[in-house]
Amino acid sequence: MNASIRFDIITLFPQIFRDYLGESLLSKAIAAGIIEVNTFDLRHWSRDKHHKVDARPFGGGPGMLIQVEPVVECVEEVQSKGETPGQLILLSPQGERLRQPLVAELAQCPRLILLCGRYEGFDHRVIELLKPREVSLGDFILNGGEVAAMAIIESTIRLIPGVLGDERSSAEDSFSDAELLEFPQYTRPREYRGISVPNVLLSGNHQQIAAWRAEQRLTQTQQKRSDLL
Amino acid sequence: MNASIRFDIITLFPQIFRDYLGESLLSKAIAAGIIEVNTFDLRHWSRDKHHKVDARPFGGGPGMLIQVEPVVECVEEVQSKGETPGQLILLSPQGERLRQPLVAELAQCPRLILLCGRYEGFDHRVIELLKPREVSLGDFILNGGEVAAMAIIESTIRLIPGVLGDERSSAEDSFSDAELLEFPQYTRPREYRGISVPNVLLSGNHQQIAAWRAEQRLTQTQQKRSDLL
Repeated sequence: MNASIRFDIITLFPQIFRDYLGESLLSKAIAAGIIEVNTFDLRHWSRDKHHKVDARPFGGGPGMLIQVEPVVECVEEVQSKGETPGQLILLSPQGERLRQPLVAELAQCPRLILLCGRYEGFDHRVIELLKPREVSLGDFILNGGEVAAMAIIESTIRLIPGVLGDERSSAEDSFSDAELLEFPQYTRPREYRGISVPNVLLSGNHQQIAAWRAEQRLTQTQQKRSDLL
Repeated sequence: MNASIRFDIITLFPQIFRDYLGESLLSKAIAAGIIEVNTFDLRHWSRDKHHKVDARPFGGGPGMLIQVEPVVECVEEVQSKGETPGQLILLSPQGERLRQPLVAELAQCPRLILLCGRYEGFDHRVIELLKPREVSLGDFILNGGEVAAMAIIESTIRLIPGVLGDERSSAEDSFSDAELLEFPQYTRPREYRGISVPNVLLSGNHQQIAAWRAEQRLTQTQQKRSDLL
């Protein structure tokens, strides 16, 4: 497992990430040098005096495409800014779906370059020339890759030792080991609006608790996500 | 289809959303009154003088759970702040996966209350008492529901008329009509680093272009997502 990870985000909206990166877990990991996050505004690589990077598609159709030149030249320059080459990820609904095994694989990379699209996407030569790994959050449409980039950052860094307070937490979550959902959990108070915490959890009998939880994981998975079984 | 949509976000980290909501498309839609977004800090409903809302799970285990009392009381108060009751969504890896048909369904709701978890999740009585619709971004683990809430906001609002500049855009994206990926698109320049735009797109023959694009959608889907066919 990596001891640290570097993210270079290429986007038309770098300011979207500002408050997000200030969130406590992320800002602590950044301050501790465990993660590094840089944002690059694609418009700086525009050849146009108005910093335009989009144009209408050949062959017609709605919307605008991001042009190939600024993207290729930006990625090349960003690559040159690091000692190790970054794995280039293009966030796109056309990509392979982000699932926990892919998260674990990406968390092994010392450096990820996250390329965020907007509008109708990129000129296809971006893919032909840069051969990025295309990753999708799922079968739904966002306005751009920024939220997907956040999801990649957040899911990968929690696998880096030192980012989460309690090392065990990331190992016991859903999808981390077996493909089962989590068991229901309860905390104080013991009773609220007529619903009590299951007695077994108050018993102090660790073997019984473990058995109840294993059974509940199966029940929850059967009820909510039988496709996982 | 809705003419407008209201989001109430309940979170421990309301500041995460600040810059995100300032992004141009979102801030324009907010300014135009097409969408309304409110954030509520769950800590205001704490009964603890230190504004704590979490406690250790009964029966042992790592991490902390969000307690039932502040959540139920917060949701009740937030519900009372609107004329129409909001559909309560709990962002959770245990939920049904966000896919475009669910996005379209959510975009029909005039008001969504997005409940974002953190730590090891919620006391299970939150679900028993409030019966939220549980929605998941996918089979991977985030630190909290905030990024998933952004994905719901971003994917739903682009279906509300007036949010996107070009009404046709949202209809022609992947997953919006047939379950096929998009065709490759190209824009200026005609040639870049030895790769030219396919001739058919420069032909001006709209019938040929449409046929090429339909064929490309199939090819792209076969290559990248044969599970959709």
